[in-house]
Amino acid sequence: MEDLQSSADPITELIVAFNELNSSHIEELYEEPSPLEFMRFVAKNTPFVVRGAAAGWRATQTWNAKSLEEQLGKEPVNVAVTPIGNADAPTHHPEYGALVFAKPWEEDQPFDEFLNYVIQQEKDNLPLESTSEVRYAQTQNDNLRNEYAALFRDASPEIPFARIALQREPEAINLWIGNSRSTTALHKDNYENIYVQIAGRKHFVLLPPLCQPCVNEQDLQPAQYHRLDSSSSPSSFLSPKEKENQGGLSLDVETASDTVPFAIWEPDRPLENATQYSKLAEPMRVTLEPGDMLYLPCMWYHKVSQSCSPEGICVAVNYWYDMEFTGPLYPMSSFIRSVYHQDNPKK
Amino acid sequence: MEDLQSSADPITELIVAFNELNSSHIEELYEEPSPLEFMRFVAKNTPFVVRGAAAGWRATQTWNAKSLEEQLGKEPVNVAVTPIGNADAPTHHPEYGALVFAKPWEEDQPFDEFLNYVIQQEKDNLPLESTSEVRYAQTQNDNLRNEYAALFRDASPEIPFARIALQREPEAINLWIGNSRSTTALHKDNYENIYVQIAGRKHFVLLPPLCQPCVNEQDLQPAQYHRLDSSSSPSSFLSPKEKENQGGLSLDVETASDTVPFAIWEPDRPLENATQYSKLAEPMRVTLEPGDMLYLPCMWYHKVSQSCSPEGICVAVNYWYDMEFTGPLYPMSSFIRSVYHQDNPKK
Repeated sequence: MEDLQSSADPITELIVAFNELNSSHIEELYEEPSPLEFMRFVAKNTPFVVRGAAAGWRATQTWNAKSLEEQLGKEPVNVAVTPIGNADAPTHHPEYGALVFAKPWEEDQPFDEFLNYVIQQEKDNLPLESTSEVRYAQTQNDNLRNEYAALFRDASPEIPFARIALQREPEAINLWIGNSRSTTALHKDNYENIYVQIAGRKHFVLLPPLCQPCVNEQDLQPAQYHRLDSSSSPSSFLSPKEKENQGGLSLDVETASDTVPFAIWEPDRPLENATQYSKLAEPMRVTLEPGDMLYLPCMWYHKVSQSCSPEGICVAVNYWYDMEFTGPLYPMSSFIRSVYHQDNPKK
Repeated sequence: MEDLQSSADPITELIVAFNELNSSHIEELYEEPSPLEFMRFVAKNTPFVVRGAAAGWRATQTWNAKSLEEQLGKEPVNVAVTPIGNADAPTHHPEYGALVFAKPWEEDQPFDEFLNYVIQQEKDNLPLESTSEVRYAQTQNDNLRNEYAALFRDASPEIPFARIALQREPEAINLWIGNSRSTTALHKDNYENIYVQIAGRKHFVLLPPLCQPCVNEQDLQPAQYHRLDSSSSPSSFLSPKEKENQGGLSLDVETASDTVPFAIWEPDRPLENATQYSKLAEPMRVTLEPGDMLYLPCMWYHKVSQSCSPEGICVAVNYWYDMEFTGPLYPMSSFIRSVYHQDNPKK
């Protein structure tokens, strides 16, 4: 009876059918695809990894703590600061009594100071509770062609097979520098994404767009970390109940802001915050080694954690290309969300 | 309130969003696409037409009544026979009291006799009720490489841009010969389809896969036409109530067979058999002239009617390539059907 019932549920049927027709093991290539080969993956909205594709890049061959510091010196760079590496992540706010969408405190720091903090923290490897804060250079605003322009010449200016296939230049090229404390929470982007590992390793957990019913998307109140000594904190507008002090950071709930729809289930803690469909998800997992290149198709959910190079840093570059909104993928993905939320209103 | 309600319905949202993001005018090319250009259309599951792509084919340049008759003479060919050109079409059966899925009577006829019948009927242009039967060579079983092998050398052995892009040979290559009496009812196929007009014109009405809620798919009892004088008719198994005599053909309901899910709404009679979603459909219409080539993406609904060359024939060739079942399109399309039928059980 259980089986008959669940097979009659359209969402269950959808995810089970997808799992039967698609592998949860990522396809591994050993050389870059041609534009046509790439387009076949785009057409089926399916990830692949090219092992060693960027092994010959100057970035992969030369970037390390010393060379980065030489290039950037005391240049101010934007740094995301959180207590436990939870930038843009669903975070329990004890006093607010709910999960909130925690945005990092952002501030400019001299690059060398930022980098040495990241490295020292990784080296010290103190228990979580004795770490004062986690720092991550993760502005996703085309920073490699702006803030970090001095480094851009060492990376590929674009990904030729993607440009030719998609007929567009990258919308943004982003540099990521952090240590193993930072994690990117499960989310999705409306971009075709080419992700290139430079130093250290990234661990991706991937779910296709139609797993929306598995990820327990909830409308979270946004909140932002603020340094307690920062004059720019809007904490004066908030009641004491709505703040939480962690290390030197206060998590201030933006009670006047619109909520943010965000996944609160994640495949590495499958029993927490699960929906009735979470158990059907068959996550695809892939670790990028230095020089590896991942095609992360548009609208795929991804959670990203990282390990450091022996020096204590993790560095990656990604290329965002605008996705195609014509065709069935985008409206059909929205449809799945609508059907799910019709039967499962957000709490 | 009406607007608010309908915007809250996921199926309405789906079709409206698709219409906003996609044109209902077909893209017209004037030379064949490269494999990569073709793959971009496959990726967005969107049709295009190439005007004059096959204008130089020997088939387009030389096939006419005389040359076809010279090549095939009295070779027996499979002919679909129906009273009004309704092969594989939902058809009202007065005595059965319902729509049935009417399959044609199939018989072998000498090619010259078949062709002359088709031409004479078109020339006579008698009113529908005084026409005894409609004949259509429409076996979709790779007939151009088998039954009509003598003609195959005049057509392209395959479509290079499709073979290279899809990495497969055509699964079937089909020849269609008929006159303006025959219509192909709205349906869809799990194939990527390249359709090439040779003589006369074809008029396509197209709907994307996500318009499933518009087409009023019902489970129809299959029925087959039989010649009243045919000894192979299984009419002895059927009660008189379940037969209908039209011209020399009896439509015998196959009461013991499984039903066939089939669209009973069609865009050219929008008020008949409509669902609450039919009015949202924005059909794409295209007429193929001799030498034109249509890419009909997998799972698109299509209704096809035809006009004759001055000689009184309509001839086309199509190439079916297996579709890709990995990726989201196939399971998402099934999902839409399931959600629709959950709320709108078949009658």
